[in-house]
Amino acid sequence: MRVLGVDPGLTRCGVAVVDGQGGRRAGLVHAGVVRTDPGEDVARRLVTVHAAVVALLDEHRPDVVAVERVFAQHNVRSVMGTAQSAGVVMLAASQVGLAVATHTPSEVKAAVTGNGRADKAQVGLMVARILGLAAAPRPADAADAVALALCQLWRGTADVRRRAAADAAPRSRYAELVRQGASSRRASP
Amino acid sequence: MRVLGVDPGLTRCGVAVVDGQGGRRAGLVHAGVVRTDPGEDVARRLVTVHAAVVALLDEHRPDVVAVERVFAQHNVRSVMGTAQSAGVVMLAASQVGLAVATHTPSEVKAAVTGNGRADKAQVGLMVARILGLAAAPRPADAADAVALALCQLWRGTADVRRRAAADAAPRSRYAELVRQGASSRRASP
Repeated sequence: MRVLGVDPGLTRCGVAVVDGQGGRRAGLVHAGVVRTDPGEDVARRLVTVHAAVVALLDEHRPDVVAVERVFAQHNVRSVMGTAQSAGVVMLAASQVGLAVATHTPSEVKAAVTGNGRADKAQVGLMVARILGLAAAPRPADAADAVALALCQLWRGTADVRRRAAADAAPRSRYAELVRQGASSRRASP
Repeated sequence: MRVLGVDPGLTRCGVAVVDGQGGRRAGLVHAGVVRTDPGEDVARRLVTVHAAVVALLDEHRPDVVAVERVFAQHNVRSVMGTAQSAGVVMLAASQVGLAVATHTPSEVKAAVTGNGRADKAQVGLMVARILGLAAAPRPADAADAVALALCQLWRGTADVRRRAAADAAPRSRYAELVRQGASSRRASP
């Protein structure tokens, strides 16, 4: 089972690909951050995030995508951008027929450390130990995305199987729609 | 100048295409609502909204897209879905190189009725009068999308011109990325 974990954000979007290898062992395939320029239009920044996730899905072929659940009680300005970023990530996954799971920050911390209120250092320590790394991936957004992927590996398997069949069908229909829209627009004067 | 106005939402997303014909006159090309099933996965619902907007852009070829600005102070649960819906609408527009403008509800009301605190009935009355219709488009989400498009026609022209040049370039690069991702995934077992 290969999972793409995403810690959504407009300025920094953490991304990680993790392979489950049975039990508590897991292998890190990729960890990084998609950055967009805060000076750019939001719409353009969303295109950057979406295109980066499309490219990751294409390169690493995960079986499922896990996205951190966004809450509105944080910083009001940034949460809108975070929600929109999460939206285009979920869109990208569903467009290629993948199931999307969401987990709350406390679910992620509990899955990785056993404590839903663990701090970033504890999460980073456990992420490094589970993956057999000398240190947690940097920056913190990348480590959070790894933790999210691990949470999905251990908590989300049954749920994902349940949805897999329903998620396969619309793939080709959508791809056609996108191509029609893109090609006919590009051919216009 | 042709505008696609969008009143974003996950359950009901109002959409309207309006042609500016100089002065306060305008012509209605299309008004409707994109609906998604509340029982479905959010990711799948976002695919429906995105695909519907792609199809509208393809059919009606607007010059600019105007989206209502989402605020976090409303219902916390629904605002996340509304923000994600707005995100995929902005994405669809920017993916085909169109500029995206946002307007607040009070800007829209002020532009259409002269009063930023006008109620829905007043907005509907003015929308019908401006478009030369016997009554405002139904349901309310469609009428809101028309009002948003009218607001963009009268307030947003200069801003859109400024961004038009910058918005043309990434079109082909993105379309290639999407096609690569879609086609290589579809070819996999």
